[in-house]
Amino acid sequence: MTVSALLGEIERIGRDGATGGYRRFAFTPDDATLAEWFEAAARARGAEVTVDRCGNQWAWWGDPDAAVAAGRAPVVVGSHLDSVPDGGPLDGPLGVAAALTAIDLLANRLGHNGFTATGQPLGVVRFVDEEGARFGLACSGSRLLTGLARPETVLALRDADGTTYAEAARGAAVDPDHLGRDEETLRRIGCFVELHVEQGRALATPELDAAVGVASRIRPHGRWRLDLAGRADHAGTTLLADRDDPMLALAAAIAAARAAAARHDALATVGKVEVQPNAVNAVPSLVRAWLDIRGDDEPRVRATLADVEREVGRAASEESWTAATEFDAGLTARVARAASAALDGASVPTLPTGAGHDAGVLAQAGVPSAMLFTRNPSGVSHSPREWAEPEDCERGALALAGVLGLLGGELPSDGR
Amino acid sequence: MTVSALLGEIERIGRDGATGGYRRFAFTPDDATLAEWFEAAARARGAEVTVDRCGNQWAWWGDPDAAVAAGRAPVVVGSHLDSVPDGGPLDGPLGVAAALTAIDLLANRLGHNGFTATGQPLGVVRFVDEEGARFGLACSGSRLLTGLARPETVLALRDADGTTYAEAARGAAVDPDHLGRDEETLRRIGCFVELHVEQGRALATPELDAAVGVASRIRPHGRWRLDLAGRADHAGTTLLADRDDPMLALAAAIAAARAAAARHDALATVGKVEVQPNAVNAVPSLVRAWLDIRGDDEPRVRATLADVEREVGRAASEESWTAATEFDAGLTARVARAASAALDGASVPTLPTGAGHDAGVLAQAGVPSAMLFTRNPSGVSHSPREWAEPEDCERGALALAGVLGLLGGELPSDGR
Repeated sequence: MTVSALLGEIERIGRDGATGGYRRFAFTPDDATLAEWFEAAARARGAEVTVDRCGNQWAWWGDPDAAVAAGRAPVVVGSHLDSVPDGGPLDGPLGVAAALTAIDLLANRLGHNGFTATGQPLGVVRFVDEEGARFGLACSGSRLLTGLARPETVLALRDADGTTYAEAARGAAVDPDHLGRDEETLRRIGCFVELHVEQGRALATPELDAAVGVASRIRPHGRWRLDLAGRADHAGTTLLADRDDPMLALAAAIAAARAAAARHDALATVGKVEVQPNAVNAVPSLVRAWLDIRGDDEPRVRATLADVEREVGRAASEESWTAATEFDAGLTARVARAASAALDGASVPTLPTGAGHDAGVLAQAGVPSAMLFTRNPSGVSHSPREWAEPEDCERGALALAGVLGLLGGELPSDGR
Repeated sequence: MTVSALLGEIERIGRDGATGGYRRFAFTPDDATLAEWFEAAARARGAEVTVDRCGNQWAWWGDPDAAVAAGRAPVVVGSHLDSVPDGGPLDGPLGVAAALTAIDLLANRLGHNGFTATGQPLGVVRFVDEEGARFGLACSGSRLLTGLARPETVLALRDADGTTYAEAARGAAVDPDHLGRDEETLRRIGCFVELHVEQGRALATPELDAAVGVASRIRPHGRWRLDLAGRADHAGTTLLADRDDPMLALAAAIAAARAAAARHDALATVGKVEVQPNAVNAVPSLVRAWLDIRGDDEPRVRATLADVEREVGRAASEESWTAATEFDAGLTARVARAASAALDGASVPTLPTGAGHDAGVLAQAGVPSAMLFTRNPSGVSHSPREWAEPEDCERGALALAGVLGLLGGELPSDGR
């Protein structure tokens, strides 16, 4: 099946009628529907599907444990199906759909879907809660799996309605008492390759002009929260001079973040704001603003944050910090070669990214990992305007099939 | 009963455990509990309680229609019981509790609560939805009663959960089909006097130093909404130069509002902000900001708005406009004299206010109306920190009893 056809099967799940964007949040009914779809699609292709201790789904063609016992753990591809609020159709689902299409392409090339008969199993994974839209922690599924996040910390996180991660996970039949680093699952992963729509337009520029690229590294990335406290007052009666209005501090923080990011050649964003009590006729008592900062290296990021804190005269609290992630250089080179071969020798350039991914978490945890990107002419993601040409989505699946074939040893490597 | 004792009876209703503030919103279960309390308290004092077509409650001592037929419509006192989000205990409830205490004081002075036997009935009103916290329109109860708001407009308003005013009213046993100007109720109001905690600290200053004052006028007041549209983008990958980030426009609007208000000697507040999608890692697609502007006259208010619109390069949409309201000068003078007499000749200064009230709506609709304020040393309202000395609350009730006695002709006017 084509990538477009597979994406078409889930295009209505979790889509907001008003914005056209997706609202697929972890452990919700829509999330469960997506999990059912993934399980059915994988089973229809002959896989056995298991769920690890953290709620991530694994589709296995062949016996991964036998392969591990034989000294060669399988290649795994895949991505996630959840979204940011009002997200696009590709961030996550493209990698899952392309993985399933790659399985089909391999089966077609071999004339049967028993390509695991040679003893080299393959895996496709759907990670849970990559975006962290509901509980505020990105990649909770892979962070828990690898032990990079502490279960007790994650389980206590609450969504906007006050529901804890533990309660939500239990509602999705994931036992909170068993959440945590899952050795049994980890040792099955020989290497992990995630295909993702590019979240910028580098591949679409005339300089690169390529349908598919590979990731060199993920830039360092932090999230901070600024609690701007003021004093609630009546908007119609309190003199300007008598006010302690935290909205003014918010304005200063927004302006400072942009100026500091420009100064340090970093990216800084205030994307989330909460106001208390958020009434038209009340000076707020509290404004909370979240600050997302990324850059080529940690000093740039830290300098940007320090400038904002100095400007507003308050310290921000760190909600997450992700150091720069270098993907496995040898694996990345082999992935690029396999992708190029699968695309008739097309150029497969290497580029860094500012976005976090489950592949980055696995790489941090020592699992050999690599990423493929497909061209995104809009350069936009985390928006309904996220876009890729259908032909490029299919090219992504072709590249992924080439990678599976080369790394899995299933297909002739054409001498490369 | 004292004002403090009456307020004590409702102090737990609708109170947020975390903030200590009140969240008493129109047509909610807490609102219904408050309505039941009002009805029981009025009945215990010998009143008959009716609900008008718009959901406002009226407690009558004596037959108001007989008084109207005899050419002298009754005096009505009262206020509201709903609150802003995280509001204080006095804004609204003080006026209702003081009205009931004034009834007790009159009854005690006469030795019986049959003071209506002389043919001069009295009324105490609880207006519904004064703050407009749930549906965004302040004083909907009095605006609908007087016809200053169109029922079809109000009925279509939605709260944050998407519930319409019509649905919420129906849930509170108010028939949406009968909402609108209520002549039968209006003709019963000979005049209306509302007592309210001062929402500033003028009475507490050494210059005035008075427990009770009267309102001269309500300053003009408008509410506008700024829709700041941008383009949703990934916070980690979109270059600063490629962004159309509406959060920057918000920062400009907040700063411009403060500067323009200072320039034109007005008050401008950005108290409410909504961000879409409001995700830490997404440049927003839309930021909405509400602008509350008040001043001594309309030109100041309009000039402040124009400066903000020019600064952010966008037009704001007007959500409400309330022209300056002049209270009835003759009535106000009589109210001040009666209050002073009731307080042993204490000074009862006259002061303007920037806050809207049901008394202002009635005055706009041609109902002779006046307001009494009680001293608020904190100067704060719309906040749990709103405060008045218990002694001043009781003085307010004494003043109100004096007003009822004088205007109702029930008690000797002492020649004033």
